[in-house]
Amino acid sequence: MKKVLSIVLLGLLSVGALWAENVLPADMILMPVPAQVKIGDGQFRLDVKFSVAVNGLDSERLARYATRVLRRLSGRTGLFFPQDYIYANSVNDTARFIINVKRTGQLIVNEDESYKLTITPEKVELQAETDLGAMRGLETLLQLLKADANGYYFPAVQIDDVPRFTWRGLMIDVSRHFMPVEVIKRNLDGMAAVKMNVFHWHLADNQGFRVECKSWPKLYEKSSDGLYYTQAQIKEIIAYAAERGIRVVPEFDVPAHASAWIFAYPELSSWTTPTKVERNWGVLDPTLNPAKDFTYQFLDAFFMEMAALFPDEYMHIGGDENTGNDWNANPEIQAFMKKNKLKDNHELHRYFNQRVLKILTKHGKKMIGWDEIFQPGLSKDIVIHSWRGYQYLAESAQKGYMGILSNGYYIDLIQPAEYHYLNDPIPPDSKLSDTDKKFILGGEATSWAELVTYETVDSRIWPRTIAIAERFWSPQSVRDIDDMYRRMDVVSHQMEELELTHIKNYDMMLRRLTNNQDITNLKIFADIVEPVKIYDRHFQGKKYTSYSPYTRLVDAARPESMIARRFNKLVAQYLDNHDEQACVDLVGMLKIWQANHAALMPVINHSPILQEIAGLSETSAHLAQSGLEAVSYLQNKTKPDASWSARADEITKAAKQPAGQVELMITPAVEKLIQAAQNQ
Amino acid sequence: MKKVLSIVLLGLLSVGALWAENVLPADMILMPVPAQVKIGDGQFRLDVKFSVAVNGLDSERLARYATRVLRRLSGRTGLFFPQDYIYANSVNDTARFIINVKRTGQLIVNEDESYKLTITPEKVELQAETDLGAMRGLETLLQLLKADANGYYFPAVQIDDVPRFTWRGLMIDVSRHFMPVEVIKRNLDGMAAVKMNVFHWHLADNQGFRVECKSWPKLYEKSSDGLYYTQAQIKEIIAYAAERGIRVVPEFDVPAHASAWIFAYPELSSWTTPTKVERNWGVLDPTLNPAKDFTYQFLDAFFMEMAALFPDEYMHIGGDENTGNDWNANPEIQAFMKKNKLKDNHELHRYFNQRVLKILTKHGKKMIGWDEIFQPGLSKDIVIHSWRGYQYLAESAQKGYMGILSNGYYIDLIQPAEYHYLNDPIPPDSKLSDTDKKFILGGEATSWAELVTYETVDSRIWPRTIAIAERFWSPQSVRDIDDMYRRMDVVSHQMEELELTHIKNYDMMLRRLTNNQDITNLKIFADIVEPVKIYDRHFQGKKYTSYSPYTRLVDAARPESMIARRFNKLVAQYLDNHDEQACVDLVGMLKIWQANHAALMPVINHSPILQEIAGLSETSAHLAQSGLEAVSYLQNKTKPDASWSARADEITKAAKQPAGQVELMITPAVEKLIQAAQNQ
Repeated sequence: MKKVLSIVLLGLLSVGALWAENVLPADMILMPVPAQVKIGDGQFRLDVKFSVAVNGLDSERLARYATRVLRRLSGRTGLFFPQDYIYANSVNDTARFIINVKRTGQLIVNEDESYKLTITPEKVELQAETDLGAMRGLETLLQLLKADANGYYFPAVQIDDVPRFTWRGLMIDVSRHFMPVEVIKRNLDGMAAVKMNVFHWHLADNQGFRVECKSWPKLYEKSSDGLYYTQAQIKEIIAYAAERGIRVVPEFDVPAHASAWIFAYPELSSWTTPTKVERNWGVLDPTLNPAKDFTYQFLDAFFMEMAALFPDEYMHIGGDENTGNDWNANPEIQAFMKKNKLKDNHELHRYFNQRVLKILTKHGKKMIGWDEIFQPGLSKDIVIHSWRGYQYLAESAQKGYMGILSNGYYIDLIQPAEYHYLNDPIPPDSKLSDTDKKFILGGEATSWAELVTYETVDSRIWPRTIAIAERFWSPQSVRDIDDMYRRMDVVSHQMEELELTHIKNYDMMLRRLTNNQDITNLKIFADIVEPVKIYDRHFQGKKYTSYSPYTRLVDAARPESMIARRFNKLVAQYLDNHDEQACVDLVGMLKIWQANHAALMPVINHSPILQEIAGLSETSAHLAQSGLEAVSYLQNKTKPDASWSARADEITKAAKQPAGQVELMITPAVEKLIQAAQNQ
Repeated sequence: MKKVLSIVLLGLLSVGALWAENVLPADMILMPVPAQVKIGDGQFRLDVKFSVAVNGLDSERLARYATRVLRRLSGRTGLFFPQDYIYANSVNDTARFIINVKRTGQLIVNEDESYKLTITPEKVELQAETDLGAMRGLETLLQLLKADANGYYFPAVQIDDVPRFTWRGLMIDVSRHFMPVEVIKRNLDGMAAVKMNVFHWHLADNQGFRVECKSWPKLYEKSSDGLYYTQAQIKEIIAYAAERGIRVVPEFDVPAHASAWIFAYPELSSWTTPTKVERNWGVLDPTLNPAKDFTYQFLDAFFMEMAALFPDEYMHIGGDENTGNDWNANPEIQAFMKKNKLKDNHELHRYFNQRVLKILTKHGKKMIGWDEIFQPGLSKDIVIHSWRGYQYLAESAQKGYMGILSNGYYIDLIQPAEYHYLNDPIPPDSKLSDTDKKFILGGEATSWAELVTYETVDSRIWPRTIAIAERFWSPQSVRDIDDMYRRMDVVSHQMEELELTHIKNYDMMLRRLTNNQDITNLKIFADIVEPVKIYDRHFQGKKYTSYSPYTRLVDAARPESMIARRFNKLVAQYLDNHDEQACVDLVGMLKIWQANHAALMPVINHSPILQEIAGLSETSAHLAQSGLEAVSYLQNKTKPDASWSARADEITKAAKQPAGQVELMITPAVEKLIQAAQNQ
């Protein structure tokens, strides 16, 4: 071992941080970055003699995981490895890759997931306390695969790795748009590839109840349009997740978000009762009736059944966004409040939660819920799931409550990876004591599904969630944005082998949009736009429902334009550093965009679904033209006249208006060029 | 109705064949071509007022199908149709699309699948005897969608359609490589899109037994590596198929192809008993023991269970490729034959079949099997499935036996669509009487799975199976090859909306092969190669097993290069007709190929898995160079000298050698250019 790259572990001092930025060598694409990496001498060359042994523990789960990794290695390299399957604890003296684990990991909070991976030119060794740790290490090994003209190899390296947070989750909403079994499975594979370990399954909401329920069958019979998971499928997915060291935490949101419950069982209603499956989005009124004994009998039977179906120690009860309108409207509920001395809806909600908590406890589950459940008087083993912000988590932690963060990880809001990446469950400037910090277990990315379908959900989750996964696993000090993007791109492409569609459905959707015309020009345009952000899509003249088409350009467009990011970088390099190569490169890009509209228009004319972006496409050509002219002024060191400036400003203004609910991501950088030309 | 395009129905005379070639107007892309199409005046314009009513029959299945079609229409057009769901037999006076059916279709042979689709500028009407016919008509309607600058529309048209054959099948082998539930589902959707109606499920073979079996659980426990369908999943798939009007015919191949059975239950063995799951390909010896009562007791219990699980009236028992070696080797079997006066293995096989037939009959099933089951003494309700050829079917038909054809539809052999397309269960020159022809029920494309995985199977099935689907549905006279290819391309792209990966996995696999480098140059090369044909892949130095990597260029490459096809056409146009535009176009293509190798080599150098095609890539550049020079000689009307000719012939010879198990598909056309230059 020659060079030590030590990356500061949480709570530990760096022991020789030779490499101050905590950035790995450029040719070592690991993500999440491990806690500690030491670079060795030489390489372990991969050839058909390669074979694997799982020793120490008789873990069939790990043997199967290792077999899948061997197949992925074979798939990437084309090497015909002679080993057909890896059997647990099989004696294999010739194996050049030895995995050694001590015990079977449990799928619980704070389980050991550390591992140590040692690669020398002679052999590969992976050691871990638990098979879960070994799984994490196997994914690291796959990321270490490199190639040169002589073939494939792993660089000599020693990695000591341990996660920063124990709760590294992804929530998928399958209520608003149903996600078939295979969507869940491939996303579980994606999670495992970046060492995430909690799948939070948002199974019920106003628009659909997605689980076969034997105690209350109308829940899925009436409120799912036939789109639900059978209990056999639920078990299949839980088993699939467990094979990958992933916990499955189900969420049944109560008392609000309850239209689906109440449509199926109107006797649960506080006031409003839907007469059909809800297909509109929004924060809606139907709420379970907290004043009726039936409600608790219902939930008791329901949670008894679900507690048996879902093995995780936690059950998520949602608890968010109760409008209170239905409670205010119902005189019986008002009377109940008076009788029980509950002075407002918050106190009534607390009363409800306490009864639900009793039910969960009775059935052996701990409770997790959104911020709203955090009310005085709840037991200390609940977990607060914060959609509001880390400061609320810090507050709860100081009071001795565990919490996880989702604020800042709402990937449905179409924000850039770097925004999520820099968002930290325990920010660098946190004032929490080390003891209090331990109450913050981690976080979850949340894929809410108003605007995504099985076709687009992968592209809304990945690649941005890779950055979030790194935030949850890697040392806090790993925060270099450019390096993150560089590595995220590579890992994103590797994840295609897991059947994720985040890359390949882009072209597919563009092909459909053009009705099988050449997509070249549409892609040039689509590459520089992004869907409008936050909740803006709902407020631009389109009324979305569960059955709207989610096949337009805004749905095909990626949440983050890497082309626009590159262009913005080039503009900064040019303007800040007078970088002439950057100038050449950015001019090349502007020329492509300038010429694109004329080529795209015939395609649009044959495909009415694209009509909505015709104007913005034209504007982008004008904008690119203005950018080219601005560069020309800058290069010639001449100042544009007032009329050019007025026209350029007008174009920039137009370019800032979204169309078809996408926005042009090159506008700010072109505007900088224009302003620089004006300000000479 | 202005113009009548009448396409000759089988057994009917054309009533006004205005259009002799039986080719639809170029802008009407229907596939399979309907039996009769009359073009009307005007268009039915599609807008958000469009809604659908299902009348006549209370068919929930049809209502759900129509709802899916409405969603696909919405997805393609981006129109926000206000109708959320279509309910069966709901009164809807405002609906502009009325579906009217008389009865629920049964999933049986010879069920009525005809329909009549009438589109006027005012409304769309679909009439059918059964809901199955309506489903076929709904797919036709989707194919009729067109667009102009003003939006989307359906052309006014009247279509009277009926299938030529009642058995239009696709067999998928899930034994040699397991295909997960979603692979089957999306292929069922693909089948429905082109009006196929039989899914033949090859569930067991030497390399794996893929069904949960309660009577003999070791079958899947020992012989599946955990890759099998639970009975719940089987039911889910059968229901999914039934929703699309598709029968599911399971195949359990006996007595040969039985390694998986015998590994699980060695007491079934005739002689050879495998000691582990078989992972090699080939025609293998392990065969069920026909001389033991246990074998029949086993099969009785087995088929009783499977007969209850699979509702179709037919059960496929395989029956092919019995080597006889194990029967010859076992003295007890020899003694049994002597005792029962069975003079050879054929008679023993017949004895076995007769006992199996009795078992199937007892459990209410009719028998279907490969050619080998056709032996004297079997009942007349069996169906012969011919892998040998249509002449054998004709023979059986004359003896009063029903049959279906798969010879010529072996899509795993990587032959061009036109080869399969011109292959006919009843060829134009058939001498069969009309009565005998009725015994030929149709055919099946067969996707054998030695060399395909879940990643590549779609691309081996589609688009070529679209051409086969047309052969099974459309009038015999529909045989125009160029028109078939033109339409197949469009329908193939439309099928992407069904989640089929036949197009999108191509780029995905190229990206993996380049390890996330730019795929442009690899694609230029991959676009003009095809995997080697028939069984050649097994005889070129690679020993394939079930766990080999199927991720190399040969796996990414498409079974049929449309670019090479286009090039071949251009060369023919140029050489035959002195077409100067063709010359310009083909020279453009040759120049791209000539320059490609230099650009591709750096990519190959960074990706050892591609090393195997480096030589052929270089040869392709030389070949293109020779082609360019040949054109130059031809254009200048000069004859090349002997040394050029020798060199060109040497290059052509090299270009005919496959490498990495792909072959260059432009070689014959370039060779024609060279020869034409030489022969001036």
